[in-house]
Amino acid sequence: MSSTNLVFQNRDTHRAWLASQAALPAGFRVGCARFDFTPREAPKPARMTLTLIALEQPTPDFAAMFTRNAFPGAPIVVGRARLGEPTLGAIIVNNKISNVCAPGGVEAAERICAATAQLLGLTPAQVLPCSTGVIGWTLPVDALIAALPQAAGALVTGSVLPAAESIVTTDLYPKVRRASVGRGGIVGIAKGAGMIEPNLATMLVYLLTDVRVPRRELRAMLARAVEESFNTISVDSDTSTSDTVVALSSGRVPCDDPADFERGLHQVCRDLAEDVVRNGEGVRHVMRVAVQNAASSALAHALGKAVVNAPLFKCAVAGNDPNVGRLVQAIGKHVGAHAPGTDLSRLRARMGGVEIFARGVFQLDPAKEAALVAHLRGAELYASVPPKNGVFAAPIDFPPHERCVELEIEVGNGTASATVIGGDLTHEYVSENADYRS
Amino acid sequence: MSSTNLVFQNRDTHRAWLASQAALPAGFRVGCARFDFTPREAPKPARMTLTLIALEQPTPDFAAMFTRNAFPGAPIVVGRARLGEPTLGAIIVNNKISNVCAPGGVEAAERICAATAQLLGLTPAQVLPCSTGVIGWTLPVDALIAALPQAAGALVTGSVLPAAESIVTTDLYPKVRRASVGRGGIVGIAKGAGMIEPNLATMLVYLLTDVRVPRRELRAMLARAVEESFNTISVDSDTSTSDTVVALSSGRVPCDDPADFERGLHQVCRDLAEDVVRNGEGVRHVMRVAVQNAASSALAHALGKAVVNAPLFKCAVAGNDPNVGRLVQAIGKHVGAHAPGTDLSRLRARMGGVEIFARGVFQLDPAKEAALVAHLRGAELYASVPPKNGVFAAPIDFPPHERCVELEIEVGNGTASATVIGGDLTHEYVSENADYRS
Repeated sequence: MSSTNLVFQNRDTHRAWLASQAALPAGFRVGCARFDFTPREAPKPARMTLTLIALEQPTPDFAAMFTRNAFPGAPIVVGRARLGEPTLGAIIVNNKISNVCAPGGVEAAERICAATAQLLGLTPAQVLPCSTGVIGWTLPVDALIAALPQAAGALVTGSVLPAAESIVTTDLYPKVRRASVGRGGIVGIAKGAGMIEPNLATMLVYLLTDVRVPRRELRAMLARAVEESFNTISVDSDTSTSDTVVALSSGRVPCDDPADFERGLHQVCRDLAEDVVRNGEGVRHVMRVAVQNAASSALAHALGKAVVNAPLFKCAVAGNDPNVGRLVQAIGKHVGAHAPGTDLSRLRARMGGVEIFARGVFQLDPAKEAALVAHLRGAELYASVPPKNGVFAAPIDFPPHERCVELEIEVGNGTASATVIGGDLTHEYVSENADYRS
Repeated sequence: MSSTNLVFQNRDTHRAWLASQAALPAGFRVGCARFDFTPREAPKPARMTLTLIALEQPTPDFAAMFTRNAFPGAPIVVGRARLGEPTLGAIIVNNKISNVCAPGGVEAAERICAATAQLLGLTPAQVLPCSTGVIGWTLPVDALIAALPQAAGALVTGSVLPAAESIVTTDLYPKVRRASVGRGGIVGIAKGAGMIEPNLATMLVYLLTDVRVPRRELRAMLARAVEESFNTISVDSDTSTSDTVVALSSGRVPCDDPADFERGLHQVCRDLAEDVVRNGEGVRHVMRVAVQNAASSALAHALGKAVVNAPLFKCAVAGNDPNVGRLVQAIGKHVGAHAPGTDLSRLRARMGGVEIFARGVFQLDPAKEAALVAHLRGAELYASVPPKNGVFAAPIDFPPHERCVELEIEVGNGTASATVIGGDLTHEYVSENADYRS
């Protein structure tokens, strides 16, 4: 899925590569600020980061897609309304608290927009608010507004990297992807790393371009790109209440070839989506499931999701254990529950190119077992190290490679296909989430 | 859900209680055998246990329900055919390998039935085969058949405990539940402990009664009992390829009151279902989600499942962290994906009796946070101990108590209700499953 096949030796080589990708398209500035506060609901010291993405001129050409979770955050409620506004001039993002179903949440988001607008000479409705973090807590609005001038004062052109670094929560590293389009370009940044089965997942993604693509076309292109990128990934099957993908055009460069722009947009979205999984909470193996010859693309997509979301298969992958019985279980579970009667008699499955299932039975022997173990080990991002204090943590803060556990499912009852990307289930995931808020 | 509220100080008090529950109804015998073998697909030494449940006389009054997984094991294929037979005389169970989609699996199951029948003076079609364990591997049929005489020779009346002990795989302890019905009784045993979201899950359950209930009524009662017991639980959302629940009547005692029998059957099924979750792989907290005032029982059931299957909420519970935002996320995810447009404006949620959500917003403060932490700690089965070798394991082999994390969801858009039981997601689960086969 990733358009690259990168290998990084260490943090420095990764950060240097990110910097090389991070050039900000003309017409944009980014700025950040940090402050300490105490959450009202659980009084322990915490730190919040603000990220401001500002256009030099408000643009009519913007697109945004939001979570399908039925309890959307207040910024989602406000953001949906912003889609009807004539222009957008800035995005203000905070981490640590997601402002979901908190008392007075919408009012809090609007106050923050108004304060941001005042600093930038905009109207409040020209500002899109985004929040990620703990669900249920209330935003420290006064402290947040007091920190806004610092973010506005820090606004710079040149690189999106400061924004990519400041929108994160449990991410191990920032995520930046780009595509060149004619004389302009698209740069995208993303925040993962848990509650990721976008429909959308708290995944925040900002796609900035200087290429002039009218709002209507931009929104249609974004919907198609999201469908085949962020909507095909899952870290943990949970769907955040705050997922947001925004595309903004500063319109500085004419769009000579809309198809070329759309290809670039898809590539940036697919690359970022895979980055989000690779940096998913506790992910030690990225799984890529290519489902082919299915009766419908809905079935192909659902089978891919069933595989990457099956906890027992995810655990087996974490342990470099080619327990492919659990893969077949996952397919059979989905079909038995949601598509009974589907003909699976021609289903074939491969892992790392090795056939493991065909003609209704497993195709296994000790030599294949060894090959599958080698494939799993080759796709591992890092070896898990049992910690002295019981809290597992990733020993890396860069992606050492872009290899995946490659799974191919030929359903054999049609012509549709889908590719789904997911992660394994590890001690690092449990450690991250068994006491995330402390 | 459990009809008891038991507390056990140690393994001995638990085993003594199990023994007190284990009296075998008249007309049944159980016997076990063990042998060592080497799996063909992954040549490492392994041990298999056989469990034989025999009726003194074949009975026409038997019922069985099987997994809805679309890749059912060979014993399921054979078992479904057995439902049409006039009588059943024995059940032969093996663990370690589940005989699912293995080449020649059905023939292997039939050979085992034939050998069992010969030992017991039955026809092969009077024997029901069951297998649980690794999916995909082939049964060691010759070694298994060679061990059958040992199991037949060990057949005894008196107690079902030997069978309860020998059907297990990763279970920490055997599971036995009973109900008295008039002058007779029902005793049930169950094997968990992973791949448990029965529809059915490898959950094997055997319900033995001496009360004479005709086949047709027995099958209808079993279907109803399973629907509100085993089909309302989930350890890890995975649905085994081998789930089987069997009810056998030896017919020794007349059934004076069918309603009384059905109540007993439901109670044994509900108690065993909760036992299966409490002894689920890595489960440190049992969650009981009571969903009320929902528009349909399908919605009530689905919301309960959404909560107990949300990985992030499960991790929070594991960490005694009342991150109730993740609970609301799970409800919103389900509704957004599967029931968009559902009115959630009157939804209320409580945890341990403490209101956490009402009127569209969270109802949280530091005092409630402390009460929720105390509730979670009170429901913990054992404290997780960071191991020296990195492999987490439960330090208990008995259930110290039957307390649950109590969650109540009032949807507020109807009158239907459902109760769903699930477990948390722990390091012990990952350790158990990241290298289960080694």
